[in-house]
Amino acid sequence: MTYKLSKIAEKIGVSYEGSDIDIDGIHTLAEATPSQLSFFNDSKYALLLPETKAGAVLIDAEHAKMLPVSSIALITEEPYLKLALASKLFAHTLSTVTQEPKRGEHCDIDDSVRFGTGVVLGDNVTILAGSYIGDNVTIGSGTLIHPNVTIYHGCKVAERCIIHSGTVIGCDGYGFAHTKHGEHVKIYQNGNVVIEEDVEIGANCTVDRAVFGSTTIRKGSKLDNLIQIAHNCDVGAHTLMAAQVGLAGSSRLGRNVVMGGQSATAGHLEVGDFTTIAGKAGVTKSLDGGKTYAGFPAIEIRLWRKMQAALMRLVKNR
Amino acid sequence: MTYKLSKIAEKIGVSYEGSDIDIDGIHTLAEATPSQLSFFNDSKYALLLPETKAGAVLIDAEHAKMLPVSSIALITEEPYLKLALASKLFAHTLSTVTQEPKRGEHCDIDDSVRFGTGVVLGDNVTILAGSYIGDNVTIGSGTLIHPNVTIYHGCKVAERCIIHSGTVIGCDGYGFAHTKHGEHVKIYQNGNVVIEEDVEIGANCTVDRAVFGSTTIRKGSKLDNLIQIAHNCDVGAHTLMAAQVGLAGSSRLGRNVVMGGQSATAGHLEVGDFTTIAGKAGVTKSLDGGKTYAGFPAIEIRLWRKMQAALMRLVKNR
Amino acid sequence: MTYKLSKIAEKIGVSYEGSDIDIDGIHTLAEATPSQLSFFNDSKYALLLPETKAGAVLIDAEHAKMLPVSSIALITEEPYLKLALASKLFAHTLSTVTQEPKRGEHCDIDDSVRFGTGVVLGDNVTILAGSYIGDNVTIGSGTLIHPNVTIYHGCKVAERCIIHSGTVIGCDGYGFAHTKHGEHVKIYQNGNVVIEEDVEIGANCTVDRAVFGSTTIRKGSKLDNLIQIAHNCDVGAHTLMAAQVGLAGSSRLGRNVVMGGQSATAGHLEVGDFTTIAGKAGVTKSLDGGKTYAGFPAIEIRLWRKMQAALMRLVKNR
Repeated sequence: MTYKLSKIAEKIGVSYEGSDIDIDGIHTLAEATPSQLSFFNDSKYALLLPETKAGAVLIDAEHAKMLPVSSIALITEEPYLKLALASKLFAHTLSTVTQEPKRGEHCDIDDSVRFGTGVVLGDNVTILAGSYIGDNVTIGSGTLIHPNVTIYHGCKVAERCIIHSGTVIGCDGYGFAHTKHGEHVKIYQNGNVVIEEDVEIGANCTVDRAVFGSTTIRKGSKLDNLIQIAHNCDVGAHTLMAAQVGLAGSSRLGRNVVMGGQSATAGHLEVGDFTTIAGKAGVTKSLDGGKTYAGFPAIEIRLWRKMQAALMRLVKNR
Repeated sequence: MTYKLSKIAEKIGVSYEGSDIDIDGIHTLAEATPSQLSFFNDSKYALLLPETKAGAVLIDAEHAKMLPVSSIALITEEPYLKLALASKLFAHTLSTVTQEPKRGEHCDIDDSVRFGTGVVLGDNVTILAGSYIGDNVTIGSGTLIHPNVTIYHGCKVAERCIIHSGTVIGCDGYGFAHTKHGEHVKIYQNGNVVIEEDVEIGANCTVDRAVFGSTTIRKGSKLDNLIQIAHNCDVGAHTLMAAQVGLAGSSRLGRNVVMGGQSATAGHLEVGDFTTIAGKAGVTKSLDGGKTYAGFPAIEIRLWRKMQAALMRLVKNR
Repeated sequence: MTYKLSKIAEKIGVSYEGSDIDIDGIHTLAEATPSQLSFFNDSKYALLLPETKAGAVLIDAEHAKMLPVSSIALITEEPYLKLALASKLFAHTLSTVTQEPKRGEHCDIDDSVRFGTGVVLGDNVTILAGSYIGDNVTIGSGTLIHPNVTIYHGCKVAERCIIHSGTVIGCDGYGFAHTKHGEHVKIYQNGNVVIEEDVEIGANCTVDRAVFGSTTIRKGSKLDNLIQIAHNCDVGAHTLMAAQVGLAGSSRLGRNVVMGGQSATAGHLEVGDFTTIAGKAGVTKSLDGGKTYAGFPAIEIRLWRKMQAALMRLVKNR
């Protein structure tokens, strides 16, 4: 979808003067292209302003002067709320329209599987009953989709993956702007999910689509059941997650990370390569790789064990 | 369904003499009407006995004398077990019978969607493939139901809601009476779920129907994925819940509550307006509004932070 | 499926000489029969070697001499990896082939329900829309399957069970061997799930099939929503689990165990009869029956309460 910037400004209620341009999407200050709209709502990103390549930016008047001449300022006191309104303009239109997928050789697809438009399947793809494959999804050769899986529009599943029943790939990330009255306005999640080759995802998991760009699960990772991967996470290659793990938004895991059952990460942090996180741990900040962590907040496991011993002494001394 | 009280007494094995009345449902002592059956199995509710409007009450002989003359006592030593047996008489009969829903204008409903009888849809409702809409469900205008959603009979979803794939609305609450031999007897959950306008519910959530009355999610609330809402919860307006939150039965949240990922409440408690509950917290008692809590058992976050600091000193001093 | 041992050895890349035998499955050292292949990859099981009845064993050269003459040694330095490769040979072939089930009297089955081959239903079975019943599943009389349930091949559900929507029975257990390069190789899960009579399972649960043998949920147990039961667990009769509980692999619970919401067990442990485990607890070792435990690591609740009190004093003294 492409809109004139003047049209977007009008629709979201931002006054704007000057030259008009075509806008075909929304992205962050760091990633936006000259044909994309961006936004500024957190002063910790102020250093990105002079460098942004965004064609236009939703921004307050004070910071607007930090933008390069190539970026048009859309002045507003509520840039995040206006972003939410603009995001709806770029949202995919959901419908019941179906179309025969383009398929490779030797696929085994149940008659009850529902395809949106523009789906592409590789060779030897198996999709069992009751699954839903949204518009423009691609599924690589040799991939097996168990019954009652849902894959939302635009997601990509690579070769030789296995996705178990009840799992939902590409549902909306959890993103809202908030009004002064405490109401929440949806930020449409216009990114997607990319699942690389040889990934297995257990039953009843949820992998949220990115708000911009992609949520990524890299090659060879194996997820157990009932796992939540939030929007814009990046799960490194050959990572293992036991059941009921939860990753909050924009968590970045290195390769060969191991997460125990019911462990979780807070958002916007990094976990290094070859990190092990014990069951039920809660990771609240970035972790160096190659070590084992436990507890909430998660600390190195030898420290956590000392803490447990100290706690038992506290009790036993009485 | 309506039964003669004598018929109910006979079916559940309670002897009973005196005048007969028509009974059309079951409810708590506080809420039951003169045409409903109630029960008494916990002495903390004894003060409600003289005030009840219930037409009949399953009750032990000793407390029966506290009932008003308008309430017929059904004397039993196992009132909760007898309640379980009686609840089955009022359970909805599930079947595969389908009926075209009454629908408003401009709805987009996939052919594979299965409707029970008596469903009513507003205008501009979208329901994607593989979803199931039970008997007598109502869905308001502008609501979007993603693929493979299940809504059990009698639930109400208001206007402009979004329900993501795999979510189950109106499944049975978790309620059982127990025999002396340690067996569990199902208390049929004859209430429903009411979801008010502008609510968004993520993927693979579960919202249990009430045992009596309604489980309610109030307007503008936004739930992430894999969340459990137990029977008879009341989630206040504009509440936010991150993924994998769990509310136990009869939790009552005020408006604009925020719950972090994997946090939970024990049952039968209240959380005040504008409360924030940190990720992984476990709320074990009612909380005053307007504050932030963390930990398990959940305490004010500044206290929890002091506790974490003290714990680290315990370890570092050795 | 039956293979010549020489054929298996060839396919998995193990050199082998001597007499050939027919192999029809894989099992542990303790359980394997003379027509099954087994494996040895953990020295704590060395005492089982002289006693095994396995027809052949994947094993390192040093321990091979401990095998009885009745067991053929397949010598390898990577027995677990070779097991993974062999497991694939015995995996059930998934396909979209359907067959009318053999059904008892008075069943009510929605037209949209998809059956694999060889399904057997008892009398008065109800299966609602969108559910999938895999090859060779058996479902006992009086059982109710809500919409959008998935039951994988070979699982057995007994009489008078209730399975709520979105639940997945028999999905693959989480088992992988690991290469020297940090890649994970799937151990095909060729066991099944057995659910005994009068069990109720809530919505969006996952019950993994066993790697060998059965994952078992015994009679009268009642599971709430979003619960994970890993492969080879044995849930004792009349057990109660609140929502979001997780059992890791090979957890063995006695009868009438009660587990609070979001509690969990680590794998390969036993929980005695009539044990109560508080909400959010994490069980890390076997527990004696008849007591109540809380916390993580789970300890007796009176000790846990003392610990909480000591923690509060730590904070208040400052």
